[in-house]
Amino acid sequence: MKIVALAGGVGGAKLADGLARLLPPEDLTIVVNTGDDFEHLGLIICPDLDTVCYTLAGQANPQTGWGRRDETFLALENLRHLGGPDWFTLGDRDLGTHLERTRRLKDGQPLSQVTRGFCQAWGVKPTILPMSDQPVCTIVDTVEHGELAFQEYFVRRRCEPRVRGFRFAGLEAARPAPGIQETIDKATAIVICPSNPWVSIDPILAVLQLRSPVHQSQSIIAVSPILGGRTVKGPAAKMYVEMGIPPSAIAVARHYQGLVTNFILDRLDIDLAGEIESLGMRALVTDTLMKSSPGRLRLAQDVLNLVETP
Amino acid sequence: MKIVALAGGVGGAKLADGLARLLPPEDLTIVVNTGDDFEHLGLIICPDLDTVCYTLAGQANPQTGWGRRDETFLALENLRHLGGPDWFTLGDRDLGTHLERTRRLKDGQPLSQVTRGFCQAWGVKPTILPMSDQPVCTIVDTVEHGELAFQEYFVRRRCEPRVRGFRFAGLEAARPAPGIQETIDKATAIVICPSNPWVSIDPILAVLQLRSPVHQSQSIIAVSPILGGRTVKGPAAKMYVEMGIPPSAIAVARHYQGLVTNFILDRLDIDLAGEIESLGMRALVTDTLMKSSPGRLRLAQDVLNLVETP
Repeated sequence: MKIVALAGGVGGAKLADGLARLLPPEDLTIVVNTGDDFEHLGLIICPDLDTVCYTLAGQANPQTGWGRRDETFLALENLRHLGGPDWFTLGDRDLGTHLERTRRLKDGQPLSQVTRGFCQAWGVKPTILPMSDQPVCTIVDTVEHGELAFQEYFVRRRCEPRVRGFRFAGLEAARPAPGIQETIDKATAIVICPSNPWVSIDPILAVLQLRSPVHQSQSIIAVSPILGGRTVKGPAAKMYVEMGIPPSAIAVARHYQGLVTNFILDRLDIDLAGEIESLGMRALVTDTLMKSSPGRLRLAQDVLNLVETP
Repeated sequence: MKIVALAGGVGGAKLADGLARLLPPEDLTIVVNTGDDFEHLGLIICPDLDTVCYTLAGQANPQTGWGRRDETFLALENLRHLGGPDWFTLGDRDLGTHLERTRRLKDGQPLSQVTRGFCQAWGVKPTILPMSDQPVCTIVDTVEHGELAFQEYFVRRRCEPRVRGFRFAGLEAARPAPGIQETIDKATAIVICPSNPWVSIDPILAVLQLRSPVHQSQSIIAVSPILGGRTVKGPAAKMYVEMGIPPSAIAVARHYQGLVTNFILDRLDIDLAGEIESLGMRALVTDTLMKSSPGRLRLAQDVLNLVETP
């Protein structure tokens, strides 16, 4: 079975990691959101791509889920002491990644090629692809400050402004990174990881122009990032509220209605399964929390079981 | 007494530090070579300026003389692991300096203003000025590789190519940084620190167009970076050989002939004092090695004594 996983940051990376430990590397491709990418201090930073790569390399910081394990922050400490902009946390090891990626991109290498090189160096076997080699920027429209670049909203303003919409700048010129379309065409299943539907998955779907399964035997399986009306991490639930939609697994299922064939929700939300099935998708109730390494494996196994017996 | 010190990297920084500990801060201005500055990994790096600032801030690495004390190299280690260019050593703390300087310069702040801000943050009291706010690039003409940018010669090729000349690109457009000319005009003495005459001091002299004392009571005191025919650090002696000049305190004195009024040479070279005086300058023989903090103070005191009783 050939699996394509669509992932944003921490939650997506965890499920992708579980899948990577269960599947032969040639059977797994992870397509990562790059709508969060931005330039900061002259560095081109790809937060979701790094989170997925670091996680699969076993190098992610286990406390935060993002950044590097055994990290130090001396560069940032000196920069802060000099009065520089310190709102985006950059670890010392992590800086090496940004410096080298920026160098290669400015040299003309496409991001997908840079990512392949980094994965080789880090011993990451499955294929990890940015959704596009062309820049696409997620813009968050907020009540208080109007449009904000994603990291301005997410990190600098800590998701505090109330959102009223989203826009992906650069979509017109963005094509899926080389290899994605062929992989999607051949995939047994596409797994939408438990990432933020608005700002992690929607940009990928928009670039891929993915609106339904590509062939009849293909399943598209979404895992709800909302359980018990809340998210484990990140602003997805808050965003649903601000967009006037009660945050729940149902809201997520509706978000993906017409696209997904199977929807995985948490045991906490077992009473929502019927309503979700009425949206035209099969519902699977299981434990979706990935608190630890066995949790990732367990959820990944549930996903793969579903692919075998949809 | 008002002192202007002209300095390159490690040797210059040590004497500047000695002077800084003896003089009221308002009486000392240090003009630093920026001909070594270069762009690397998108960062604008000013090696001599950083060495002087870190040294006066008490933050220089005591082993190397350059870079930061208590430094780590995790960013570089990761960059190297990714196959990035690791020939220029960048410490983690040090990276904070380069990132913030690059940000400010790209924002339009002149280098002298950036340097003033950094010195304030680091508690450095004397005025430290880059020789110019405009870029001047020291180019080393070599037998083996033709013209090389300074750091390509100095760090990447470890001073191995044989030099046959030097050129300072950008001189036409370069003016002394704001404040230098006025400070020079009022200076009791100008101290040429024991830095490389070819590539540390010549660029400063060229930008300042300094060819003789500005007024009759002004002394210009040079400290020989060559003692016993060798340098403590760096390629000055090797450069003299390759330029067809036997390396010695005399070669340095000839280098500055017509400009300097007083020349300080090491006790090792006491027998050269007469010949140096015959070049039209007063010679002072003393201990010029600055192996430790007392050594810096002692040499700085010798310099200041000379200013008081030339």
